[in-house]
Amino acid sequence: MPTRRDLLSMIGKAGGAIAMYQAMTALGHAAETQFTGPPKLSGAPKGKKVLVLGAGLAGLVAAYELRKAGYAVEVLEYQDRPGGRNYSVRGGDKIVEVGGATQTCEFQPGNYLNPGPWRIPHHHRTLLHYCKAFGVELEPFIQLNHNVFVHNSKGFGGKPQRYKELAVDFKGHVSDLLGKSLNAGALDQQVTKEDKEKLVAALREWGLLDGNLSYTSGLLASSQRGYDRAPGGGVNGAPTPSKINSLSDVLTSDIWTHMNFFFNYVMQTTMFQPKGGMDMIGKGFFKQVSDLVRLSTKVTRITQDSKGVTAYWEDIPTGKTGQTTADWCVNTIPLPVLSQLDMQVGAPLKAAMKAVPYSGQVKIGLEMRSRFWEEKYSIYGGHSFTDQAIGLISYPNDKMHKDGPAVLLGAFARDAGGFMLGGMTPAQRIEAALAQGSVFHPEEYRKEFMNGVSVAWSRIPWILGCTSRWSDSARATHYQNLVAMDGRIVLAGEHASYYGGWMEGSLLSALDAIERIHQRATGA
Amino acid sequence: MPTRRDLLSMIGKAGGAIAMYQAMTALGHAAETQFTGPPKLSGAPKGKKVLVLGAGLAGLVAAYELRKAGYAVEVLEYQDRPGGRNYSVRGGDKIVEVGGATQTCEFQPGNYLNPGPWRIPHHHRTLLHYCKAFGVELEPFIQLNHNVFVHNSKGFGGKPQRYKELAVDFKGHVSDLLGKSLNAGALDQQVTKEDKEKLVAALREWGLLDGNLSYTSGLLASSQRGYDRAPGGGVNGAPTPSKINSLSDVLTSDIWTHMNFFFNYVMQTTMFQPKGGMDMIGKGFFKQVSDLVRLSTKVTRITQDSKGVTAYWEDIPTGKTGQTTADWCVNTIPLPVLSQLDMQVGAPLKAAMKAVPYSGQVKIGLEMRSRFWEEKYSIYGGHSFTDQAIGLISYPNDKMHKDGPAVLLGAFARDAGGFMLGGMTPAQRIEAALAQGSVFHPEEYRKEFMNGVSVAWSRIPWILGCTSRWSDSARATHYQNLVAMDGRIVLAGEHASYYGGWMEGSLLSALDAIERIHQRATGA
Repeated sequence: MPTRRDLLSMIGKAGGAIAMYQAMTALGHAAETQFTGPPKLSGAPKGKKVLVLGAGLAGLVAAYELRKAGYAVEVLEYQDRPGGRNYSVRGGDKIVEVGGATQTCEFQPGNYLNPGPWRIPHHHRTLLHYCKAFGVELEPFIQLNHNVFVHNSKGFGGKPQRYKELAVDFKGHVSDLLGKSLNAGALDQQVTKEDKEKLVAALREWGLLDGNLSYTSGLLASSQRGYDRAPGGGVNGAPTPSKINSLSDVLTSDIWTHMNFFFNYVMQTTMFQPKGGMDMIGKGFFKQVSDLVRLSTKVTRITQDSKGVTAYWEDIPTGKTGQTTADWCVNTIPLPVLSQLDMQVGAPLKAAMKAVPYSGQVKIGLEMRSRFWEEKYSIYGGHSFTDQAIGLISYPNDKMHKDGPAVLLGAFARDAGGFMLGGMTPAQRIEAALAQGSVFHPEEYRKEFMNGVSVAWSRIPWILGCTSRWSDSARATHYQNLVAMDGRIVLAGEHASYYGGWMEGSLLSALDAIERIHQRATGA
Repeated sequence: MPTRRDLLSMIGKAGGAIAMYQAMTALGHAAETQFTGPPKLSGAPKGKKVLVLGAGLAGLVAAYELRKAGYAVEVLEYQDRPGGRNYSVRGGDKIVEVGGATQTCEFQPGNYLNPGPWRIPHHHRTLLHYCKAFGVELEPFIQLNHNVFVHNSKGFGGKPQRYKELAVDFKGHVSDLLGKSLNAGALDQQVTKEDKEKLVAALREWGLLDGNLSYTSGLLASSQRGYDRAPGGGVNGAPTPSKINSLSDVLTSDIWTHMNFFFNYVMQTTMFQPKGGMDMIGKGFFKQVSDLVRLSTKVTRITQDSKGVTAYWEDIPTGKTGQTTADWCVNTIPLPVLSQLDMQVGAPLKAAMKAVPYSGQVKIGLEMRSRFWEEKYSIYGGHSFTDQAIGLISYPNDKMHKDGPAVLLGAFARDAGGFMLGGMTPAQRIEAALAQGSVFHPEEYRKEFMNGVSVAWSRIPWILGCTSRWSDSARATHYQNLVAMDGRIVLAGEHASYYGGWMEGSLLSALDAIERIHQRATGA
């Protein structure tokens, strides 16, 4: 009798990755990922060449796997560095915006800001696979920190509250109300008698309710929300309980939004970041294919016919022009730039490229003299949230317990907040970040501040936005047109995936793109 | 006008640590700890000596601070190593139990089991202070991992479920029921109209409810509980939603117990562990005072009179006896051993020493050939819970993404589970851990197993238990008697604190003990 492993192997050989995937799911494996291992592209025809546009993660992984399969590969990259949005801003780096505003980062050696991707979910198996394969070291990214602050300008007189206090109070009040509702028989139509008894007992435990099913101040609530005086040792060791917030007060906090954030599939712990900065990933990928990549090369036009595809380009430092011809093209240029490029593709793809708006996040790094948030506030990693434009501040996950200087993420502004900060000058952004972030650490924030740098993605010339933001209707109309091969050209990148804004999406889209090129090339 | 900082400093000088503490709280600082910095013991009288019994963390910190204050200090320790319960079992280490059962650990170099303390809360400021001061490097301890398994033999046909699925379903059903209850007017007496509207909106968001305030299967629920087919890239990138569990099924899981566990004040993220093993802390403390410590020394009798306190002891390797006299004694010997010792103290202290039962946890380390839980199950750190005797298995927080062998915590058995495993031979314990842990990883668990080691605390001769377990009534009757100075002797250790079982409790109790000795000594 074949073992389960044999079965999987047989299915794998016979039916390809999707059949394998479905079989794994059926046999009880969690369906954490569409990644089933690097592509096995066997039987590549001789002398065929693939042109890859863009040396972000999608382009780099496409180049790596295509060369491994036997294709000739050439990569053209606009910037003078690989990695695309996978990068880190360090001391000495220059940021030039559309409109000319220029910043030079002043961080101390070893400090950095990850302006693009900054955290890796445990189920992003494609990215984790290549990080391991390419020797990129990872360390935990502290996502859920119960001791951070939550600030809502409409609640608590604008005074930030600790996450744990609001979260424990929210679940306490919810349990209190539902428990009483159940006991009063209000849900007897919906819930069986047996389930009702179990649920009341569950709520009593979950909500820290007292004998009357009430959520009240005392040592029980304090055992989660914290104490006015924490437990200690010796003669005065006894703790003093804290006072719970009323339901009305808790409802001014939007705490459930933040509690839910941590339950988001892509935001759940355990998460990771590369040791030493996010750009370690781009550099790790680049090391594998650096001989195939032409940096500082601006693509000006793309044509194709029945024989091949041609990219016309300009060498940015010298102004020299040239052209590259290949059999196929994997095009990872971000849509805001690509849709302005002269590219010979059909109307459906052109329409799709214009149908996807990009978000305009703004990240700001603030270098602080000391890690005051650790010693004084007991906050190690994680995010303090606010309804101000900056959105949140995030505490560094590296070098915890060490001395400063350290870089705090002073803003991760999205939507209206991103629009607001993106419209400011770099100096105004720093001032806004200091003014708004001071709400959490009023005594230290300006005093410990050394310097800051911002990346307003909508003003970054090589992308003009941060990440694709498919609407459901655009997805229904345009997604398949965007990812379909147009003649000899296929698009890849996070925008060509259901994981918009995630490195995993760019990698999975690139693997899918090259598998389809390989199918065409081999006539399979 | 004095600044807030000046005020605090003035209060600090005038009123001592407690006044400072209360002032900090009143001025809006979170009361995360009773620790306000290392003790400032000035004006120690010349030629006074303190005897410290036990070189666990309480004894070591007492010795360190007393010497700094100017006292002569001598420490007697029963074992041939410092640290007490703060230790790590490594390859080559021997564990001898009451009854004679002996194990020799077979772990590979660099691998270890932390049989005692294993995680450090972010608010245990005393411990964190000394770790920093003594150069003990810390790394994140992954406490809350949404992707671990929860196993309840009474639910889901005994099949483990992912934490995230049950937790999201629980909050979904709770929100669904409370939302409907509120909308039906069942709680109109308890909740104002305005709060009701806000709360219904909050529950809709928190519970991922649909337009009818129902928690149902679909992409919305899947955006937190995970998908049958995760999102991907390219042509087949669309995800497939997962199916939610019914309320009845969720109620068989006790998931709220595990969800609540993570909300426990001392269990909340961010948490830490020392790099390289828990014993790095004991070693770090020891390095400061090693010249004061006499290891392998068994105290046989303690007497005191108006002039001093004397400990009679035996040098274990040679059998030679001796005695040490001092002005005061800080006694950190654990109560199960201390209560059997001939010690000249009053009846209230003797009664207190007998009033505190100790728990009998059992920890088992299983060395596995590979880190299969990472690559195959996407589990990095955290705990999979079960209602079997082992209680949980816990995944290592060090060397993530590396290759094996690695040590899995195969059991953290408490209460009845600890009693059950403690009653077994070491070989039986390993077999039980393999049989029970296999429920989570049936294909790999026995196949990847190399060797194992167990520490059943109730059978460890130098302590005969794991940690103190004060009942509320024993606390009310005996706690102040236990911590009070009895003549020239004062007890310290986690048992002399409100942080039973935590290193923080032992440190805070030791600091309190030496402050009181110093008061006596200086006549303050």
